[in-house]
Amino acid sequence: MIKLSETEIQQKLQELEGWEYIDGAIETTFEFKNFKETFSIMTRIAFECEAQNHHPNWSNVYNTLNIRLNTHDANGVTQKDFQLAQSIEGIIDSE
Amino acid sequence: MIKLSETEIQQKLQELEGWEYIDGAIETTFEFKNFKETFSIMTRIAFECEAQNHHPNWSNVYNTLNIRLNTHDANGVTQKDFQLAQSIEGIIDSE
Repeated sequence: MIKLSETEIQQKLQELEGWEYIDGAIETTFEFKNFKETFSIMTRIAFECEAQNHHPNWSNVYNTLNIRLNTHDANGVTQKDFQLAQSIEGIIDSE
Repeated sequence: MIKLSETEIQQKLQELEGWEYIDGAIETTFEFKNFKETFSIMTRIAFECEAQNHHPNWSNVYNTLNIRLNTHDANGVTQKDFQLAQSIEGIIDSE
């Protein structure tokens, strides 16, 4: 996987609403109704991550979910991160 | 719920291996085999949190799980945090 340049990252981010490039990763934060709803969506995302063999740096407090994606092996952001971000958005949109 | 003093917190922490009092919360980090195992355990913990109506500040990267517990309403650490921490330890020990 080839590390994307900052220009490429910023260009691809235009297709993803609410995501930003911060400290070497693409990042977003979602808010849901409560903990149960948040963890249910985390579970759906977890299955997708496992299927793509690509895993987030994510944190949760009650109804808030922060997700950061980068590619450790490439030491930066790659196409894999954008693929997973699109899948996450698909899960969120289907709710 | 009454906020515990730092002396009380340190005393109670002696019953919990691997937990520390850091920045106003009790905190620990676990490492598991892989993402699937980590998320499975997070799911078991999530059900327990919901049952106790007490929720963690937690983050996960692949096989690492960091958990911070405090009580927002008490602006500190309370007995509820220690109760949840003991439950989490029970889940880990049962693996």
